Amino acid sequence: VENNNIDHIQDLLSHLVAEEIAEILESSPIKVRQVLWQQIDSDKQGEILTHTNDEVKSNLLETMQPHEIVEIAEDLQTDDIADIAQSLPIHDQKTFLASLNEDDRNAVETALTYPEDTAGGLMSTDFISIRADVSLDVVLRYLRTLGAIPESTSELFVADRDGKYIGSLKLTHLLTHDEDTLVADILDQSLPAIRAFTPEKDVAHLFEKNDLISAAVINENHIILGRITIDDVVDIIREEGEHAQMASAGLDEDEDIFAPAARAAKRRTFWLGINLLTAIFASIVIGLFDASIEKIVALAILMPIIASMGGIAGTQTATIVIRAMATGKLGRSNSRSLLIKETTVGLLNGLIWALLTGTAVFFWFSDWSLSLIFAFALMINLIAAALAGALIPLFLQRMKIDPALASGLMLTTVTDSLGFFVFLGLATIVLL
Amino acid sequence: VENNNIDHIQDLLSHLVAEEIAEILESSPIKVRQVLWQQIDSDKQGEILTHTNDEVKSNLLETMQPHEIVEIAEDLQTDDIADIAQSLPIHDQKTFLASLNEDDRNAVETALTYPEDTAGGLMSTDFISIRADVSLDVVLRYLRTLGAIPESTSELFVADRDGKYIGSLKLTHLLTHDEDTLVADILDQSLPAIRAFTPEKDVAHLFEKNDLISAAVINENHIILGRITIDDVVDIIREEGEHAQMASAGLDEDEDIFAPAARAAKRRTFWLGINLLTAIFASIVIGLFDASIEKIVALAILMPIIASMGGIAGTQTATIVIRAMATGKLGRSNSRSLLIKETTVGLLNGLIWALLTGTAVFFWFSDWSLSLIFAFALMINLIAAALAGALIPLFLQRMKIDPALASGLMLTTVTDSLGFFVFLGLATIVLL
Repeated sequence: VENNNIDHIQDLLSHLVAEEIAEILESSPIKVRQVLWQQIDSDKQGEILTHTNDEVKSNLLETMQPHEIVEIAEDLQTDDIADIAQSLPIHDQKTFLASLNEDDRNAVETALTYPEDTAGGLMSTDFISIRADVSLDVVLRYLRTLGAIPESTSELFVADRDGKYIGSLKLTHLLTHDEDTLVADILDQSLPAIRAFTPEKDVAHLFEKNDLISAAVINENHIILGRITIDDVVDIIREEGEHAQMASAGLDEDEDIFAPAARAAKRRTFWLGINLLTAIFASIVIGLFDASIEKIVALAILMPIIASMGGIAGTQTATIVIRAMATGKLGRSNSRSLLIKETTVGLLNGLIWALLTGTAVFFWFSDWSLSLIFAFALMINLIAAALAGALIPLFLQRMKIDPALASGLMLTTVTDSLGFFVFLGLATIVLL
Repeated sequence: VENNNIDHIQDLLSHLVAEEIAEILESSPIKVRQVLWQQIDSDKQGEILTHTNDEVKSNLLETMQPHEIVEIAEDLQTDDIADIAQSLPIHDQKTFLASLNEDDRNAVETALTYPEDTAGGLMSTDFISIRADVSLDVVLRYLRTLGAIPESTSELFVADRDGKYIGSLKLTHLLTHDEDTLVADILDQSLPAIRAFTPEKDVAHLFEKNDLISAAVINENHIILGRITIDDVVDIIREEGEHAQMASAGLDEDEDIFAPAARAAKRRTFWLGINLLTAIFASIVIGLFDASIEKIVALAILMPIIASMGGIAGTQTATIVIRAMATGKLGRSNSRSLLIKETTVGLLNGLIWALLTGTAVFFWFSDWSLSLIFAFALMINLIAAALAGALIPLFLQRMKIDPALASGLMLTTVTDSLGFFVFLGLATIVLL
């Protein structure tokens, strides 16, 4: 990108859809990103911002004047305008809201009263609602008068005269029934509307469970506030998947690939610091047995194998448990069965690898006692790893700590320290 | 679940939707699962199977007679029948196909000619196609004659007389335009149909990029074969997210939480074996310096810290790179910038932690040379970790090896072995 001239870039950008440009911006180092951003038509900038992640959005908005931001926000749906407002520093947010037209401002202010990760924070206000006591004929004429139906509309909301949600009328039903049928006769009441404070995770689950394309959002009085569409839900599901992956390395799923190095280093250094504490703990355990290591150097050579195998086995169990918890498949009723199964797996793997590696150690160091101690310590550590891999995430969840974030750290502390302790401790007792 | 009586279970199950029952089955130990399965109405079993993961599906099908399987499959959409066929052993698959009615058999056999993870393997054959030269009035009457429109239909496909895809007509446009408008005048040609051999990952990307709800699948002659809907795409996106998480621990995203312990142990033992090789390699590196460790036991105490910090820092970089590659945000044009950024982060963190831990080591062992060597080795390892964390996934991708699966393993080999080598090697040269 950097080597092309500006005209060529503008030409290229004009052929891409907003989502593609958003991806290019996210994939560009910060300087290139800002040059590109200036080349983009301001008509397109608003829609592009709706597709970038939060960190890149803030980064781009920082380069703009307040009046430019208002200009690009004007044509967006209200949930997207609210997102932009949320990406601004508090001080700019007020100025920004004051500059919006009254309708938008009201809608955005409503959206801002709900946390970003709830149904209220996700919804847009562009829905069509109809009454139950009219015939399909009336509905069809009404739609033609409107002339346009919002994107991703698969159903119309049916409300009473106070705006309370009664049910929905699928477009497909509208099209296949006689024109003189009453809405009340074919409206779908099987799906409840979503409360505004429902967490986004539950919203995604509802959509997946019922194969929804859109759903109504209501307040505590059942008044329809807005609409959530499947494209927002797809984003949530993608983020959920990325969360587990990123969190296990102490990273945020909104991490900008091209964040300035100093900012990225600052965030990661905290995680390294926490990990250092667990590593130091393991070192202290080794330090307890310095006299033994001095006499039998083979202990120092072999001890990383025991720690490493325990870490891997524990991570496998923890990964399965964390995934099962995230997808709501692990609860009180089945956690005992899972614990038994995982411990059995640990025992089986412990036996297999104790046998194989014990034999290998014998051929390496020609020492029967050492190889037996090694095999025994490895088996203990693999069983402990399975137990810890299952119990730690369950414990963290009960403590309301994100298991995806903290499990790996706690697990390594157990498998490293315990592995070193059992191996070096046994060797000290038996061999010295 | 286990303690309740059968009547009560049946009553409970009858109140749940298929997806919920599927979740309960996936969350149940195998014996409970099979008892539950027998209590479920055979009318519901088919739909439930469409929601379970592949391993649980096979597990449930194993308990059934061939004629029972045909019975529950009959009412499903053809893509779901094809999924069931694919979950059967080859021998049973033939009997199963032969027992289907001709229409279903043809559709399923077509689906089976495409790999499961392509558009052709995902599609169902229940689409509505219309001609371009008719008026909306004709279309509306045609839909009323049909009486029902398939689930998740947001658009009708427009085809020529040979069945070749021309474009689509959105239901929302059908509803907002005059009845005498010709389909040809408002048909949407902006979105290309999807080729049957398109990988599912690209299908998901297309849906996300264009906020699609459904899309036509065509063969090489542009003939419409079927339709993919957003609910299938949501499943793909969920699986993609889980893949990275599970693969990093050497697990499959289809892993049954309650797979029999022996089967689970067998799968995981392979992964432990591969990891053992990397651990042994690190041990061999330590073995090179056994004489040094014998003289200065502090080396054995401190060496795990250097390896562990390197592993964490490298994992952070690798996680970011793997995520960026999976979402298509990393290519030739920006990989150099990313490499420079990550190395800078590694350098910054290396400096910070070399300083802090070097000081700590001095206070622990009161040895200036040892603390300087430790600090230097840690810094080298953190920089190497950043480089390796960025280069290894890029290299694996070029080799067509799944980076999510193999990066962690290769990375640990580098950070452990290099960390031990630099630390012990320097100590041997300087201190002895």
